[in-house]
Amino acid sequence: MAERHQVVVVGAGFGGLQLVNDLKGAPVAITLIDRKNHHLFQPLLYQVATTVLATSEIAWPIRHLYRNRPEVTTLMASVTGVDTAARTVTLMNGTVIGYDTLVLATGATHAYFGNDQWSGWAPGLKTLEDATIIRRRLLLAFEQAELAADPAAREALETFVIVGAGPTGVELAGMIAELAYRTLPTEFRHIDTRKARVVLIEAGPRILAGFSEELSLYAARALAALGVEVMTDTRVTDCQREGVQTSDGAIASRTIVWAAGVEASPAAAWLGAAADRAGRVKVEPDLSVPGLADVFVIGDTAAVFSEDGGPVPGIAPAAKQQGAFVARVIRARLAGQAPPARFRYRNRGSLATIGRHVAIIDFGRIRLKGWLAWWIWGIAHIYFLIGTRSRFAVAWSWLWIFLTNQQSARLITQRDPVRDDSD
Amino acid sequence: MAERHQVVVVGAGFGGLQLVNDLKGAPVAITLIDRKNHHLFQPLLYQVATTVLATSEIAWPIRHLYRNRPEVTTLMASVTGVDTAARTVTLMNGTVIGYDTLVLATGATHAYFGNDQWSGWAPGLKTLEDATIIRRRLLLAFEQAELAADPAAREALETFVIVGAGPTGVELAGMIAELAYRTLPTEFRHIDTRKARVVLIEAGPRILAGFSEELSLYAARALAALGVEVMTDTRVTDCQREGVQTSDGAIASRTIVWAAGVEASPAAAWLGAAADRAGRVKVEPDLSVPGLADVFVIGDTAAVFSEDGGPVPGIAPAAKQQGAFVARVIRARLAGQAPPARFRYRNRGSLATIGRHVAIIDFGRIRLKGWLAWWIWGIAHIYFLIGTRSRFAVAWSWLWIFLTNQQSARLITQRDPVRDDSD
Repeated sequence: MAERHQVVVVGAGFGGLQLVNDLKGAPVAITLIDRKNHHLFQPLLYQVATTVLATSEIAWPIRHLYRNRPEVTTLMASVTGVDTAARTVTLMNGTVIGYDTLVLATGATHAYFGNDQWSGWAPGLKTLEDATIIRRRLLLAFEQAELAADPAAREALETFVIVGAGPTGVELAGMIAELAYRTLPTEFRHIDTRKARVVLIEAGPRILAGFSEELSLYAARALAALGVEVMTDTRVTDCQREGVQTSDGAIASRTIVWAAGVEASPAAAWLGAAADRAGRVKVEPDLSVPGLADVFVIGDTAAVFSEDGGPVPGIAPAAKQQGAFVARVIRARLAGQAPPARFRYRNRGSLATIGRHVAIIDFGRIRLKGWLAWWIWGIAHIYFLIGTRSRFAVAWSWLWIFLTNQQSARLITQRDPVRDDSD
Repeated sequence: MAERHQVVVVGAGFGGLQLVNDLKGAPVAITLIDRKNHHLFQPLLYQVATTVLATSEIAWPIRHLYRNRPEVTTLMASVTGVDTAARTVTLMNGTVIGYDTLVLATGATHAYFGNDQWSGWAPGLKTLEDATIIRRRLLLAFEQAELAADPAAREALETFVIVGAGPTGVELAGMIAELAYRTLPTEFRHIDTRKARVVLIEAGPRILAGFSEELSLYAARALAALGVEVMTDTRVTDCQREGVQTSDGAIASRTIVWAAGVEASPAAAWLGAAADRAGRVKVEPDLSVPGLADVFVIGDTAAVFSEDGGPVPGIAPAAKQQGAFVARVIRARLAGQAPPARFRYRNRGSLATIGRHVAIIDFGRIRLKGWLAWWIWGIAHIYFLIGTRSRFAVAWSWLWIFLTNQQSARLITQRDPVRDDSD
């Protein structure tokens, strides 16, 4: 018996997992490599950052997901390079792994557009660690305000700035407002958390630019109703320990969150392949790398265009469709059939929530807003979680908050590597 | 109206919370100070360290517990000193808080008996951060063993050493064995986690010295049946990066947990009061400090003796009884009545679990062991958790593991400040 076709998948996000799932039963051996030991349901990460959900409710140990697939080997490791001539991947500990087919699905990180020194004061939200740091800073700001004697210091502690008004920024701003204005007021004796400021800064002319103008306007009104100050046409020119500088003046703030841009992982550098300005690999219509038919790049690491020429958005459904597509290509090649020539993106709609009761959904032709959209959003997200247990846990957390208005994941834990003036 | 009697409570553990709870309705204003923002249910902390429970299931934001008690002010802050002449407590940020009655309930930390340099390689288990670090190291050891090429390195990665065979050490060893031998075997491809070693080292002649000899022997047999190697009469002479040195030879291990001793917090130094060898304040029979009738020390920070002259153990029920007692003293004094003169400890029994199905309970006269004891242990612990939500969550986590044998809180997160060679 010949050795099985070796598929190496780097990255266990939505794209990588969909690929491994869809290769079930194919005549391959799979090595799935990720820097973390868990797959993360990123669309709900903002709820971990804002004390609604616990980390374990939206993350799963990768190797546990494939415990019943003996042909899948899971490795927790960082990839340091790819040798496309020798067809090998090198890990940080020196291990070299050979591949017949390689799929890079390594995602993206936040981009500060050349101002990486801002990252300490304005963390982004991509990992569970990011979410824990942001949660820590949010809760600690209120704790320190309760102790602060100086009114100016207290005001800076009670000012929360979110930079970037895409779905993540809007969702963070809404939930921080809910926390300050609805959950916390009865718990403090020296401060009135209803006087906290939540400021959402957007460089463009409107929030949620990916949605229709009508939905964007609706979302802006819903945010204002929650108490969020929305500043559009405003550029952030500096982030410091004391707050942000903007094209519209300075804002003193001790808690800044960055939701303004992403940058692809270094897969292009590993391959020596051409990339766009955001670092995404320019792939062929079948998602392979030009000149490397056995190497695919999918998800946020790839610059993919839909048939009408527009870019495929960096969202979970797009990454999953790409993972499924590459699985079909691999299966067809191994079966000696003609593989599908071109990835076609199907737009399943864009969603964003504003606070705990309102959402907007843009299906292209059909547009929904308000509480009905919120319910559709909630049910869809529970459906897409992995496993009965997580679905129950998240539904239960949401139901509990709905019934009691009390969020439970409010622990301040771990040290903060940058802003550690906690006591 | 005269200003209310000011009670300052430092420490929101079992003793501090019981005190504040029992002062409900008394003519006092209470300031409750803790370094953390949460109360921790320490008896189940070992289950967080061993991936059974999530952090948010056994910890609650302190100020949330007292949101409906406007006379209670919660502060998250470190105390740096007490001025018993001026009757003030000083916080790290310089804030000075006056008291009429002061209660110190600041707990204990692990003691290395003069070898504090061991703490990095052999962390103890007192805080959520400790539990997260231990969980991280446990899970990472298996991940790195799966990647290791060198058999000796792999063996050290698959060897887990627990120092100290009191209830915490026994509980940790049992759960690590369950994890290695029952939960993980199907998930790895290069290693057989059933070959991992779990070694429990005890300096004394038997494990669980606080229990009867019969129960101790039963527990030792139950641990052996789970696969734990128990080494009694063995002293640890050094803890290093590579493993432990013992009076019985060296053991190469990358994961060491310290469960061998505790040391009181520095309350005695703040007060200039006499302390015993473990740093506990020698208190009067009514738990006040000699010469300071308005200062009380309770819980693990106090050296308290029961009527038969034996020391009151450093466990949750003892701390709670002391908190309740001091509340009665304060109430009586404020009402102009004679306060109770002497704290009397009521032994409600000692409990310890071995793995996921067996426990021992020592009520003094009545002794239980096996699965019935496990059920009593489980029900008692769920009963003592705070709030409906946590009770449901923990019961659900245990039921899930009972039904599926799968533990879900298996995330490797955060950086490890000492052993960070994770990738």
